[in-house]
Amino acid sequence: MKQRPRVVILGGGFAGIYAAMELEKAVGKGEDIEIVLVNRENYFVFQPMLPEVISGTIGILDVVSPIRRLLPRTDLHVRDVEEIDLEKKVVITSPGFRPHPHVIPFDHLVLALGSVTDFRGLRGLPEHAFPFKNLGDALNLRNHVIRALDEASIERHDETLRKQLLTFVVAGGGFSGVEVVAELNDFVREVARSYPSLDPREIRIVLLHAGERILPEVAESLALFAQDILMRRGVEVRFKTVLEAATGDAATLRGGETIPTKTLVSTVPSFPHPLLEALPLAKGKNRRLLANRHLQAEGRTDVWALGDCAVVPQVDGTPSPPTAQHAIRFKGLGKMGALGHRSAIAELPGGIKVSGFLAWWIWRSIYLVKLPGWGRRLRVASAWTLDLLLPAELVQLKLGGSLGVTQEHFEPGQDVFRQGDLGDRVYLVMSGQAEVWRSVDGVEECLGQLAPGDWFGEMALLNETTRGATVRCTKAMDALILPKSEFSVLAANLPDLRRSFERVMEGRRGAAGRGGERRGS
Amino acid sequence: MKQRPRVVILGGGFAGIYAAMELEKAVGKGEDIEIVLVNRENYFVFQPMLPEVISGTIGILDVVSPIRRLLPRTDLHVRDVEEIDLEKKVVITSPGFRPHPHVIPFDHLVLALGSVTDFRGLRGLPEHAFPFKNLGDALNLRNHVIRALDEASIERHDETLRKQLLTFVVAGGGFSGVEVVAELNDFVREVARSYPSLDPREIRIVLLHAGERILPEVAESLALFAQDILMRRGVEVRFKTVLEAATGDAATLRGGETIPTKTLVSTVPSFPHPLLEALPLAKGKNRRLLANRHLQAEGRTDVWALGDCAVVPQVDGTPSPPTAQHAIRFKGLGKMGALGHRSAIAELPGGIKVSGFLAWWIWRSIYLVKLPGWGRRLRVASAWTLDLLLPAELVQLKLGGSLGVTQEHFEPGQDVFRQGDLGDRVYLVMSGQAEVWRSVDGVEECLGQLAPGDWFGEMALLNETTRGATVRCTKAMDALILPKSEFSVLAANLPDLRRSFERVMEGRRGAAGRGGERRGS
Repeated sequence: MKQRPRVVILGGGFAGIYAAMELEKAVGKGEDIEIVLVNRENYFVFQPMLPEVISGTIGILDVVSPIRRLLPRTDLHVRDVEEIDLEKKVVITSPGFRPHPHVIPFDHLVLALGSVTDFRGLRGLPEHAFPFKNLGDALNLRNHVIRALDEASIERHDETLRKQLLTFVVAGGGFSGVEVVAELNDFVREVARSYPSLDPREIRIVLLHAGERILPEVAESLALFAQDILMRRGVEVRFKTVLEAATGDAATLRGGETIPTKTLVSTVPSFPHPLLEALPLAKGKNRRLLANRHLQAEGRTDVWALGDCAVVPQVDGTPSPPTAQHAIRFKGLGKMGALGHRSAIAELPGGIKVSGFLAWWIWRSIYLVKLPGWGRRLRVASAWTLDLLLPAELVQLKLGGSLGVTQEHFEPGQDVFRQGDLGDRVYLVMSGQAEVWRSVDGVEECLGQLAPGDWFGEMALLNETTRGATVRCTKAMDALILPKSEFSVLAANLPDLRRSFERVMEGRRGAAGRGGERRGS
Repeated sequence: MKQRPRVVILGGGFAGIYAAMELEKAVGKGEDIEIVLVNRENYFVFQPMLPEVISGTIGILDVVSPIRRLLPRTDLHVRDVEEIDLEKKVVITSPGFRPHPHVIPFDHLVLALGSVTDFRGLRGLPEHAFPFKNLGDALNLRNHVIRALDEASIERHDETLRKQLLTFVVAGGGFSGVEVVAELNDFVREVARSYPSLDPREIRIVLLHAGERILPEVAESLALFAQDILMRRGVEVRFKTVLEAATGDAATLRGGETIPTKTLVSTVPSFPHPLLEALPLAKGKNRRLLANRHLQAEGRTDVWALGDCAVVPQVDGTPSPPTAQHAIRFKGLGKMGALGHRSAIAELPGGIKVSGFLAWWIWRSIYLVKLPGWGRRLRVASAWTLDLLLPAELVQLKLGGSLGVTQEHFEPGQDVFRQGDLGDRVYLVMSGQAEVWRSVDGVEECLGQLAPGDWFGEMALLNETTRGATVRCTKAMDALILPKSEFSVLAANLPDLRRSFERVMEGRRGAAGRGGERRGS
């Protein structure tokens, strides 16, 4: 029996989905091929509408479409890709319910893995900045913002904390950052009205941008229009400002200024999927795969590259920008960006510039038409209609789940915790330095230093009391954090871990006499 | 300055929310009191509609209402309650962004903490059964079911696994269990049509019930009607069947029979909130607080008890059942239960029994009217209308987040993992026993035993190869599990942990020669 040729598509963004749709059409016309698509989610995200999830203008699921419904003839594997072997012509995916290896042989491989947000190398960003790339990111951000407002509304003593909670910072003034900050600003200012104890004047929404004007993608007049709208609605736009580091308490700018905040969103930087790095294929600018105008990877006839992870020449020979429109067609429809509250900017083909309500109306109409599937269009149209009548959705969606072992970054001068706080976690210094201070009758005393390899914070936990001292970072520090519950179960089951703790505690008891938070000898 | 008396309400279910609503009305009429409500979520769940979240018949957020919108004059604290001190007249809540203690003094305390699902003492249920109590539970279950279908559709070699993935078991044949199994059945059978590679005949939906007929809450004729509907739609209803234990692979019934499944939902048992146990207040049946007909806790004039956590006498002196209707009023509206697919049963006041489409129509109309807030009613009505036109929502919503340190329960004969599997986690035996088996050229050899305190599974992880042996449970075993990522970061930073691992590995190398999975000497 002759096997049908198998085309394996990696990635379910615009490029991958539209490639599969074209192949399905070919199958419909009698082409005998097998189509496999591998994507980590079972849905396709309509990226241009993602910022609307923050405010809940459209239903949380309206911005995504189940891939199975879009691609009925495609075999969908909801998995991560673990390995691509071009020589053996196989793709290996991550384990499912049982951890057996899952190998998919291919005749043709379509690489449409898109780009990923990668904060590595940016001090504190991997631990503390919110990315904004997929539906999970959008929901996490939304939940976090509502939680910050909830907490600010009952925080009446700690001024600094309330300021941090009510300041929201977005880094990156391109399309994505501008749309996020516009939605965030509208949402926070609207729902704040449901918090009688919050003073709206305490709310700060800040956009950080490295250049001299936002939206470098469009003409200056439109960018200025957008800037003006944002500022009038209360967004502080900071130009020539570069984000240098982040902690759980602040954003640090180049030059040393810090903005106290618990919410930092960064829409930059993005890189092609890390799996592509190891592949023996030619790469161009920004590590993207070089493709010819037939979308074939250079030097291969069985490997194809498209979308954000590829450099595809346009009709005039210049490479396509990494946007949805270019992922699915060669000729641009123009550029559009929503600014919230029924305004937008658009640069249409032929150089026509539109702004304000008309641009917003065009933006919505075009996207409604482009949204794949009639069902989804109906749902979005209905959600938009309800949105005209109803206030913004204010539900914080928690899925529970354990916190797990996490990491945090601290900058010099920052308090890790303060004397008198509740002890709900333990810390292990991975790099950097901190000092332990105790105040007795108003006199501050330094009890010791903490260096890499040192544990701290376990006393309050074991004795179930409050923190006996303040730990303050003195040299940029990365710490590993175990929540109370995980710590207890590990300490109960790992005799080695327990012994090493007991040693630390004995050392402290000997040194401090009264059991404060102090470095073990 | 005279302080206004402060009423602190604990719990945001039907009882707490409606109590606060009544108090707000009093404030509106000039009563000078301060109302504080503490709830772990910022929304109120309209419990009777929760099962509809599984199928997405209504929007995910339509089943909940933001408490701030319902109670504009109430000070909402979105926190867990950590401690209640009746003597000092304070409530202490869990820490927020900063871990400082948060103390709320009260003049009057309203206990409306409801009930919690508590699987403790039931073998394997805490680790492997899905509870169904709040919105998070409903979403987790929905996501898991979609994931199971996604995985089953690409599982072509392992028959046993596919069977486990396609079997869905619900334990408990009361209202809650029946509504969940009906929704689950409708949902799975409808969306399965979008999986061309799945044979619908392989799908099993099982309802386990301890009694001789389901729905003991209603008259026999209605219960029989419901049973008949469920069975005709493909639910296997098992009577006089008690769930005794659960693992990640099966549900074990009393008598020893096992049903292979990856999805076990248990709607029983529920208990009053554990915080109430420690309170010096009189308790009645099932540890619920005794209240008089004014809802005052026995022997107190400043503590009130209502809803599921209290025993409140009805007009005739008998205690109220723990349902939404009784949490908000004394006189019952009747009993109703949805059976999916436009059918329901209802027992109206005066003993009138209705079933089928008419009961379903009554059910929807009553709930639509009872749903708090016009906005929510409009959204639900619109979602129900769209649902008539559109197929079931098939999006699996992941919020990401770490897996953390988890626990699993294994029953004798169950494989923990098999030779050749990928190694993505390590295990620590907490109780019970297992054996290590290796197959070489078709010959099975027992390499050793695993007992409490033993690690296993780390070889495949450290050497990044596949499992060198099969580990099989021989005596009911509980194990602690660390995913690859958490294990790596812990081993890298905890010298004691690393050393204890290295010792185990050396022991194995010495014993096995080739580095298979084997118990350390």
